[in-house]
Amino acid sequence: MDRRSFIKKAGLAGAATGAAALATPALSQGMKEMVIVSTWPRDFPGLGLPAQRLAARITELTDGKITTKYFAAGERVGAFDSFDEVASGNAQAYLGAEYYWRGKHAGFAPFTAIPFGLTYTEMDAWIKYGGGQALWDELSAEFGLKAFAAGNTGVQMGGWFNKEINSADDLKGLKMRIPGQGGDVMAKLGASPVSLPGGQIYENLVSGAIDATEWVGPYNDYFMKFYEAAKYYYFPGMHEPGAQLAMGMNKAWWDTLSSTEQAIIEAACNEENSRTMAETNANNGEYLTKLITENGVQLREFNDDIYDAFGEASAEVLEEARDHSPLAAKIMDATVAARQEIGTWMAKSDLAYMQKRNRVLGLED
Amino acid sequence: MDRRSFIKKAGLAGAATGAAALATPALSQGMKEMVIVSTWPRDFPGLGLPAQRLAARITELTDGKITTKYFAAGERVGAFDSFDEVASGNAQAYLGAEYYWRGKHAGFAPFTAIPFGLTYTEMDAWIKYGGGQALWDELSAEFGLKAFAAGNTGVQMGGWFNKEINSADDLKGLKMRIPGQGGDVMAKLGASPVSLPGGQIYENLVSGAIDATEWVGPYNDYFMKFYEAAKYYYFPGMHEPGAQLAMGMNKAWWDTLSSTEQAIIEAACNEENSRTMAETNANNGEYLTKLITENGVQLREFNDDIYDAFGEASAEVLEEARDHSPLAAKIMDATVAARQEIGTWMAKSDLAYMQKRNRVLGLED
Repeated sequence: MDRRSFIKKAGLAGAATGAAALATPALSQGMKEMVIVSTWPRDFPGLGLPAQRLAARITELTDGKITTKYFAAGERVGAFDSFDEVASGNAQAYLGAEYYWRGKHAGFAPFTAIPFGLTYTEMDAWIKYGGGQALWDELSAEFGLKAFAAGNTGVQMGGWFNKEINSADDLKGLKMRIPGQGGDVMAKLGASPVSLPGGQIYENLVSGAIDATEWVGPYNDYFMKFYEAAKYYYFPGMHEPGAQLAMGMNKAWWDTLSSTEQAIIEAACNEENSRTMAETNANNGEYLTKLITENGVQLREFNDDIYDAFGEASAEVLEEARDHSPLAAKIMDATVAARQEIGTWMAKSDLAYMQKRNRVLGLED
Repeated sequence: MDRRSFIKKAGLAGAATGAAALATPALSQGMKEMVIVSTWPRDFPGLGLPAQRLAARITELTDGKITTKYFAAGERVGAFDSFDEVASGNAQAYLGAEYYWRGKHAGFAPFTAIPFGLTYTEMDAWIKYGGGQALWDELSAEFGLKAFAAGNTGVQMGGWFNKEINSADDLKGLKMRIPGQGGDVMAKLGASPVSLPGGQIYENLVSGAIDATEWVGPYNDYFMKFYEAAKYYYFPGMHEPGAQLAMGMNKAWWDTLSSTEQAIIEAACNEENSRTMAETNANNGEYLTKLITENGVQLREFNDDIYDAFGEASAEVLEEARDHSPLAAKIMDATVAARQEIGTWMAKSDLAYMQKRNRVLGLED
């Protein structure tokens, strides 16, 4: 969406909101309106639809005492303006991914994902029972916000490439859409990372303006039709091993809510966090098969040499993020400690079990 | 608890409930009481505490419109009488593990775990977006119940043994506390499985009445002090790779609830499902280290030969469970299909990523 149509739409949306508020006397009878601005396109499978489901769920669980008004990306503000819209109090909440705000503070990245970081189950353990939420609260408070985990799309695929990647050298000079710290890792290996919103990736890939892109996983990626321009689909991604989504609220508004209302919003976020993950995992297998059998996609696995290079570059990227501020360093260190402690347990449980089970059953593809 | 003290306690509990109902006029003002009978001991870390947290959360989220009264195992009925107490309408809900009811119907087992079955993330995907909940509803309805997932303790440890297990032959003649289909697998390999409630395992292990036991994982097992009698602690368990807990409600009562009340109970269960898992994963690493360094526990990994034997016996056990009824067969087949489809995706995502990450980081112990 260009700037002009964005302003036009935002203006219309603002007018509509005003009219709706005037026409809804119920809102003055102890009902509260919660305007949610989203970073996801409307009705987008895997991201937009879960966000809309969460917004509707808050209205449902409060029996309308908190009535949410959901605006998809661009319908009220542009995706990346959501943070300011909520921090300023113009809207009550945003739905997105915290690493979008790493320009505001480097400490936001680990609350989505960092390269070589936590998987979904590790992340959930760290956030809820490993001290993660307290650090997140400390960071959010600096911007007048309060955030909860509200979705996860798990281990991302490594991306779509128009050639095979057999060594780190093959990444040199590659123009790849990959945002955040994953992009920083690629840059260290000689690629040229670019940031593009979801709606602009396809055209850039088809035109050859970029050679490669990552997005999410088979279910989400299927609808993007990247396979028309890039046949090689690599796994597993190192850059977002458990991409957590978030709902960030204006803290002054949050503080006006009753303890029951706060508990309901927290529960709705917790519920959607696992729902998004479950939906993604339930669909990825089927859509990966579709991509391979119907669209001629070539599935490839990153080899050990490439992963060694990714690992080395990732360590440098994390170290640089620590330099931002004492709080960023504290958050990075906590994530790395959680990776060590929870990851060690996962190696003895989920990882060990799946390896043994799959070997015995011959379950691989 | 023996039968006599159980009856005495149950009588007292019944009287207390009656008095409370009379003394609480608020309950007649549109407030509903929800009696929850639990299969877990009161205040038991990892199982009892999460169950109590869920009960309290329902009261909190409904602002007391549904006020829960929680009875731990034996406080109102014995753990294994919970199902009948709820099916008969004497109580509104039970908290436990569905495989406790496999004597009622073989189809219940897969809603907790089956040998060589689904991990937590695979189970959650199957239940919520892979057709699992619909099958569960069909089964529960035969008993006048409606159930939701309400906790998960993940991949169980393989158990505590008083000797090393280097081949399937070492299992022959072993008296082991291992309930459910895991016990059936052990029986096929020549062991003598026994079922014992949690509170009786320790004394039987210390006295030598049993040679081995499984329970849950490091965090839960630590408090059981099994290490005093059995030093060898094996991983990963094949018998319960993602042990899901459940809240089962009397369906006639469930049907009287408003859609808002139903949505809140569902959301509370969904939230607790991931909370229990997060808490378990956050604590297991720390408690495994404690067990090894403070209590002299010897950590051992089941070798491939043993896993091959487990796999063969498990396939037979699942086949036998299919024979129970067409519905049991349908449920078993659906679980196995989910293992193939979702498990194949997990092999490309969580499993592949953790293997590569851990190799690069040297993250193993």
